[in-house]
Amino acid sequence: MTADNHDSFGLIAIAKQTRLASMKLAVLSTAARNEAIEAIASALLSSQDEIIQANITDCEAAAKQGIAKPLYKRLQLDEHKLKDNIAGVKDIGKLPDPVGSVQIHRKLDTGLILKRVTCPLGVLGVIFEARPEAAIQIASLAIKSGNGVILKGGKEAIHSCEAIIKAIKQGLSQTKVDPDAVQLLTTREETLELLKLDKYVDLIIPRGSNSFVKFVQQNTSIPVLGHADGICHLYIDQAANIEKAVNITVDAKTHYPAACNAIETLLVHQEIASTFLPQVAEALQKLNVELRGDTATQSILSNLSNIVPATETDWETEYSDLILSIKIVDSLPEAITHINEYGSKHTDAIITEDIEAAETFLSLVNAAGVYHNCSTRFADGFRYGFGAEVGISTQQIPPRGPVGLEGLITYKYRMTGNGHIASSYTGEDAKAFLHKDL
Amino acid sequence: MTADNHDSFGLIAIAKQTRLASMKLAVLSTAARNEAIEAIASALLSSQDEIIQANITDCEAAAKQGIAKPLYKRLQLDEHKLKDNIAGVKDIGKLPDPVGSVQIHRKLDTGLILKRVTCPLGVLGVIFEARPEAAIQIASLAIKSGNGVILKGGKEAIHSCEAIIKAIKQGLSQTKVDPDAVQLLTTREETLELLKLDKYVDLIIPRGSNSFVKFVQQNTSIPVLGHADGICHLYIDQAANIEKAVNITVDAKTHYPAACNAIETLLVHQEIASTFLPQVAEALQKLNVELRGDTATQSILSNLSNIVPATETDWETEYSDLILSIKIVDSLPEAITHINEYGSKHTDAIITEDIEAAETFLSLVNAAGVYHNCSTRFADGFRYGFGAEVGISTQQIPPRGPVGLEGLITYKYRMTGNGHIASSYTGEDAKAFLHKDL
Repeated sequence: MTADNHDSFGLIAIAKQTRLASMKLAVLSTAARNEAIEAIASALLSSQDEIIQANITDCEAAAKQGIAKPLYKRLQLDEHKLKDNIAGVKDIGKLPDPVGSVQIHRKLDTGLILKRVTCPLGVLGVIFEARPEAAIQIASLAIKSGNGVILKGGKEAIHSCEAIIKAIKQGLSQTKVDPDAVQLLTTREETLELLKLDKYVDLIIPRGSNSFVKFVQQNTSIPVLGHADGICHLYIDQAANIEKAVNITVDAKTHYPAACNAIETLLVHQEIASTFLPQVAEALQKLNVELRGDTATQSILSNLSNIVPATETDWETEYSDLILSIKIVDSLPEAITHINEYGSKHTDAIITEDIEAAETFLSLVNAAGVYHNCSTRFADGFRYGFGAEVGISTQQIPPRGPVGLEGLITYKYRMTGNGHIASSYTGEDAKAFLHKDL
Repeated sequence: MTADNHDSFGLIAIAKQTRLASMKLAVLSTAARNEAIEAIASALLSSQDEIIQANITDCEAAAKQGIAKPLYKRLQLDEHKLKDNIAGVKDIGKLPDPVGSVQIHRKLDTGLILKRVTCPLGVLGVIFEARPEAAIQIASLAIKSGNGVILKGGKEAIHSCEAIIKAIKQGLSQTKVDPDAVQLLTTREETLELLKLDKYVDLIIPRGSNSFVKFVQQNTSIPVLGHADGICHLYIDQAANIEKAVNITVDAKTHYPAACNAIETLLVHQEIASTFLPQVAEALQKLNVELRGDTATQSILSNLSNIVPATETDWETEYSDLILSIKIVDSLPEAITHINEYGSKHTDAIITEDIEAAETFLSLVNAAGVYHNCSTRFADGFRYGFGAEVGISTQQIPPRGPVGLEGLITYKYRMTGNGHIASSYTGEDAKAFLHKDL
């Protein structure tokens, strides 16, 4: 059976293999998992010509089909990019082990000891789009965290992904990790099948467009790690330092507009609007940012020819592009209300020299990230020092915000007794629990 | 508008009120929230006659309608039970504050400080059945954790719940907590409406039968804290101490058979079966436990007249009653495979004096609780020392197992800078992050 021709029965068989391999992987030592990561890095290096050649095949096919330029760039995997990714694999090997960490260690009674210990989730299902190096990163993170992984790559990257996974499996075959722990699916139909495998897959990580993430969330009963929207706000308070405000606005909008942590809406306090707006508008327009303002903004910037009127739709749109909507607010509470109404709970920032206003904003804005006097662009697992990022979550319950290896593990309560029964602790002569942390 | 006559529009208005009240509650100090808990306790004490009278009305109506006896018992709230619950409220006040705890405190660069701080989820939606005192416990836990709560009580308990919530609101009105933070719904239609309010409700906690929890899970896009099944196993290894094995089997099956942490299936290693089974069968039958055995079990217990043959269905059934299925296994791996196939990831235990076998079992069984030489009945938030239990989760991702106040909170990343922008940390003259934990 070839990788690109599984029927549903074939997929279940693959998922069962992954589950079995993941159970063996879960009990390996930290050293054994790190050695496997090293072996992946070496195998990728040995196979680099083959991988690059496979990528050229993908790129040529994509070019023939007239793929869009940004997509083509993401698809490309040259020697330099591959080397960087191999270095990234080695870095993952050096991260602290997320597995086996004791979170609770408690004596419930003499001889009755409770431990809460972190352990792998089991099997991850990861669906990603064009970038073939995602397969390298994800497979390494999965092995590091003791999880099996079923990867579904984009159709455009099929030869690249096959070459990468072939190398990874070959590397693993030299280690204690069963190569079945890493699997590759390549057809679109398999995406839907994968979403149904709630018995074999413990977490789905979709990496792609907002609409794709939403589609995944709506079509699976498996927990999904991901965010659908990144509507981030920057609020310029009346007590803002103008220079900081301008610099941060420019950075948060233009540094990488397609990123989910770029801002979409600028809220400006009315007291500072007439000073701040002309300066920031000049800076942004120099960088070709399209500005869409509410009536008050348009009136302040009336000397500029190209301010587009903002409509209700603008407040709820993630442009992912060099477009910024601007609204003038009467007060800090109005800014907070706007953000809690239209934001996507990703990351929102206030610029102010007023510590009390900052504290109010950070307390009352409901988002995974709430920032004071810095750019929303810092919302990222690497920048937070997690060493890796498996996704950014905008859900209310943990894990929230940028998620590192922590998002790939769970925990178990392990209890050891010596014949202890619960009925001894109830009724008339009930023993008391000690609940002493060890 | 009365509590039992909301249309959908009315429910949204109530949910908005709760959201507003919860935002004010979220920023109150630990002391202010604890004072509110004290005020709830005092108000319940002052209103005890009214509450008990309301409960008598409910009980009389239920008796007239021929309610089942166990349900009637759960519905009853006498002076003694009420006093216990008021003491429970005071205990909740004394628990450590789950809000405002700093989980990460890291210097990303000079002047750029990241903190991960716990905060309330927002608004809880709690749907419970007959027991009216659930309203007391849940409202107190919600206030303690800084959350608003919309309660939907069972129809049978309507007068009791109304009297309780009236007292709680009256108590809160003397404090900094807006009484709108606690709301009561009473009609069945409102349950479905509540499940749709994903904009206003952050977590649904269903307390009821398995089928009810499943119904809730399948009918809402709001995260659900709860478990659908409690199929717990006890495995008697070949190296088990027979006395411990018998005592723990009896405790785990008979101490409270309706509890989710009671065992449903007993797995016995073939080497010990002929010694162990007759002893445990005698002990269990004395306590009126119906035994359902596989062929090998039936053969060993052939001198007993009333062993029912176990079928495939038995391995996947939560009896919640004095019934136990028994299967003889060839080996520890066979026991583990059976548990991972049929268990509900709740709590499973091994009885053995062989430390290596115990370690294998605890590592390879995939469940929230994995126990060695003690009863599965210890799987409980109070017994774990959490001070409170808001539910038991059998999902794979955290929170898992018995969940205390921790399940009612989330976290935010709060970052403070001094004009820091992300572009300084990329490109040719990129600054490096410090990532120094403080």
